Order: sequence, then C-alpha cells, then structure tokens
Amino acid sequence: MADRVLVPWRQNRDNAPPGMRVSVFDGEGDPPGDLSDVGFYVVPYGRNQRVDLITQMPELSVVQVLTAGYEKVRGVLPEGTTLCNGRGLHDASTAEHTVGLMLAAQRDLPRWAVDQRAHRWDPYYTRSLADSRVLIVGYGSIGQAIEERLLPFETEVVRVARRARPEDGVHGIDNLHGLLPGADIVVLVAPHTPETEGLIGEEELAKLPDGALVVNVGRGPLLDTAALLAEKGRVRAALDVTDPEPLPRDHPLWDAPGVYVTPHVAGGAQAFYPRARRFVDAQLRRWAEAAPLRNIVR
Amino acid sequence: MADRVLVPWRQNRDNAPPGMRVSVFDGEGDPPGDLSDVGFYVVPYGRNQRVDLITQMPELSVVQVLTAGYEKVRGVLPEGTTLCNGRGLHDASTAEHTVGLMLAAQRDLPRWAVDQRAHRWDPYYTRSLADSRVLIVGYGSIGQAIEERLLPFETEVVRVARRARPEDGVHGIDNLHGLLPGADIVVLVAPHTPETEGLIGEEELAKLPDGALVVNVGRGPLLDTAALLAEKGRVRAALDVTDPEPLPRDHPLWDAPGVYVTPHVAGGAQAFYPRARRFVDAQLRRWAEAAPLRNIVR
Repeated sequence: MADRVLVPWRQNRDNAPPGMRVSVFDGEGDPPGDLSDVGFYVVPYGRNQRVDLITQMPELSVVQVLTAGYEKVRGVLPEGTTLCNGRGLHDASTAEHTVGLMLAAQRDLPRWAVDQRAHRWDPYYTRSLADSRVLIVGYGSIGQAIEERLLPFETEVVRVARRARPEDGVHGIDNLHGLLPGADIVVLVAPHTPETEGLIGEEELAKLPDGALVVNVGRGPLLDTAALLAEKGRVRAALDVTDPEPLPRDHPLWDAPGVYVTPHVAGGAQAFYPRARRFVDAQLRRWAEAAPLRNIVR
Repeated sequence: MADRVLVPWRQNRDNAPPGMRVSVFDGEGDPPGDLSDVGFYVVPYGRNQRVDLITQMPELSVVQVLTAGYEKVRGVLPEGTTLCNGRGLHDASTAEHTVGLMLAAQRDLPRWAVDQRAHRWDPYYTRSLADSRVLIVGYGSIGQAIEERLLPFETEVVRVARRARPEDGVHGIDNLHGLLPGADIVVLVAPHTPETEGLIGEEELAKLPDGALVVNVGRGPLLDTAALLAEKGRVRAALDVTDPEPLPRDHPLWDAPGVYVTPHVAGGAQAFYPRARRFVDAQLRRWAEAAPLRNIVR
C-alpha cells in the first residue's frame, strides 16, 4: 500500500484515503517524474491515454481504464497485473441519448431543426413515444438504464438478450423474429460479436411493421446498412453508430428517408465525468482497504 | 337518458353503454340530420370544431370539448348546460415533447440534424441531462407528467407553482428569484394570465447561471422574447411556444444563438387520440350511470 497512485483528476487526490500517496496526471504534458513506485494507475481519459507509461511502472499491481473497452492496454499489461474497466460509467449518458433519439424520431425534432434554419413555422401532428412497444436488444446495464428511463413514457418494454432468462422476463435472441412484427421501436445495444453482426438485416427489417423505428446505439455492424437503405424509408432509423464509421461524406445514409444520424456521441457527454471521478474515488478506497475492486476484467 | 349522443369516433359508439343512442360525427361533411334530440355533444377535434351546431340542440345537457381551452364554446352555451373540457388528454404528448426538447438542447440534437444535412461527421462532448437541477414552473397535471418522466434521468426536480404547498414540496412563485441561480434548466408550463406574462424577463434571465436552459411549453408570453435575445446565447432556450406566434419569417429568434424552436407541436401527437377516445368512452358510461362527470368546467 506504500505504492503511489496516479489519477487523472485532482478530486481523486483530494478524496483519497489518508496516507495514500497520490499524484495527478491527466494525460496532457509530461507525466510526473519517476514512475517506478506507481502501484495503481488510472489511465487518463480521452485522446491521451498514455498506456505506454505502463512499461515504466515495475511495481504496478492495478491498471484502471475508464472506457468499457481495454484493447489498447491488454498488449502492454504485465503478467499478474489486475485490469479494471469503466463498465457502467457511460450508462447514464448513453441511455439518455438513446431516449433522445427515440423522441427525436417520433416527434420529428430533426425536421423542426431544419425548418428553423429555413425560418419555417409549419406544425402538424407527429407520432408519439407513448404507447410504443420497444424491443431492447441487449439487456445489460445500458439496456436496463434505457428501460428505466422509458417506462414513465407510457411505453411497453420487451427485453431481449443473448440467452432467455424467463425469471427476469428476458427473451432469448432466438425469439427475435417472432417479436419483430409487434415492435414499434427496436433498440440495438448489443455488443459487436460474430453472432450479432448483421443481427438486423433484410429478413428482420421485412418483419417490422410499416413506420417502425430502429435505434442503433450499440455498434454499426449490428444493422445491415444496405438492407436499411433498401427499405427506402418504410422502416425508419435513428443511428448513433453506423457501418461504415465515420460515415463518408458521399454515403447514401446521410440523405436516406426516415434516417437520423448522430456521430457516435451517445456515451460522450458531461454525465460521464462525475460518475468516473466517483468511481475512481471508490476504487481507491477499496484498494486501501484491500476490499475487492469492481469491474475486474483480468 | 333517451337523448341522443353525438361522438367524433366510431369506437365511442361501439363501446357505448347498452341502449344508448349514439351517432358519429367527426366534423367533416354534414352533421347527421336532425339534431333536436341530442343531449350529449362531444365537439369534434381539430379544424372543424362545429360549435355552431349547439344552437340546433334544444335538449342539450352536456357539451364535451377535447381541448383544455373552451373559449369558443362559452359564447354559445345555453344556460344550464354542463361543459366539460379535455384537461389531461394532452399530458402524455406534451410531457414527452418537453423532455425531448431538454434532451435535444443538452445533447445538441438540432446540431446533429444540421450536420447530417451537410454530410458532416464531427463528434464532440456535449452537455448531459443527467445531474441537472430542473425547475418546473407550473406544477399542474402536465408539470407532474414532466417530473415523472424526468426522474429516472438522474435529475433533481424543483417544483414551483402559483402558491407554495410545503406539504407537497412545492415552492411558491414568490420564491422564483431565489431558485433561479441554482437552476440548470427552467421549464415553463404555467398558464398565460396577467400574473404570468413576462414571468421570465431580463431580471430573471440575469439570475440564471451561464449556459442555463429555458424550456417554454406553456405560452409564448411567459418568456420575454426581447430579454432572451439580449442574452445573446448566454442563456439557452428550447421553445415550443413563442411570442409572437407563429414566429414571422424575419424574426430574430429563428437565428438566435442557443435557441431551438419547434412550432407549437408539444400537445399535438398521436398519443392524444387513444387517450381522448378512452376518456369519451368513460364519460358516456358515467353519464349513463348518472355518475359525476369528469373535467366539468361549467
């Protein structure tokens, strides 16, 4: 426990348990001097993740990343070092953007934004989110956070995950084809794996009723872009992730009817920061007390 | 009870209590023949409200309108006729649009819509709705519906109404100036009265912190347009109602920085129809059973 801790935010130092030696390094500029006594490294968030510094830390016992993914760290992580990820830290941000996309699509918010640019006041009745049956495909922590936010909107939520869990009211993905014809909105929050690639393709889109909405906040390849384009607006889409990504300037998805695109920003919002700082505070307390760390992935 | 009932939707006739004589008239085309035996008139919704027909109904005992306002009917209503309004029927629709406006403003959805038009993929971190302190000014049925939807978003809601109701945690409007400096978002859902006109003006806007958001879904004149423009984007706004309204093509509000406008569409969405039909069904049942009607305004 005499090892030094390297954290990205001053607040983590201020809140650290008494006696803990803490330095602050947010990834900008030079790291603070000699790193040979660093035992707990919270990798800075954002552009400068500086996983390269790990090789300068022979005493390292824990690496904490603040993203859900940890591919960059895996390659440089010494044997015997514990790795924790940032699972859950983007849930609030991602879930609120997801509901925002649904409301935007149902209530024509992108249309009003474009009308505003044209100084056009042209009201009409729109769809509602209320009374929609929403399939959440991928019922992990983000899926649950989306569900919590949706329920007061007088929607009906249907949970779908890789495996059925009847005790929790979760359908298995093998049931998907049977569920699609009754869905008004399908939210994709599953991870990208060989099994989920093209999960929603030509056949699945064809089973959706006219005017149904597919919301993708998972990964672009979950939805078959060509199949969506072939629907020509019969099925609508609100996409925070696309395939390909970033979407090239000349891609037909930009102008496809009934398609609304945001540039992979669901997880990236202010809500992340306080949650990440509190999480680091709590991890340091656990470490000081030799209590089990959260989010251990290796 | 032998009197005839005139309803706008066939479903109301199909669901009417046994023995009730019901005709359907949705406001389009000619009304169904002789109206002299109509005892209960549900005024059609939308463009053709046909309140003029009331003068052809000497046996009329109840007029039901499906809007919250009833100015048009008041003038032609015979002495002794009961008038019921549509209070609550637009709550789900209005509340979801309100939360949509908040999410749109916090997560820059109008910006992404404009970027999509320009085929521009340019992500950055935005504000969040999470962690916001939201003042709801006007804590009636719509204000409560907004609150219900907001709470799972990890927001803090502060209730403000004309009169303080400490037992319900409701602040009085006389407290408004004290509450504004701590607000991230102010939602206006109060009615337009001489007391609420210009409720948020230069002085009130000045008390809001930098970057605060004013959401107006009540009536345009609650917010002083000139004072908002004078803020030049320091305070942001998402406005479903404006003053003047409709907004003229050359009005500076269209291009004001940090201002997002939708053309008075909060209440107007599909969610209205099933709620209105169910409400009419229930009113007819009450009438048949001589039970007290809901929403009596006169």
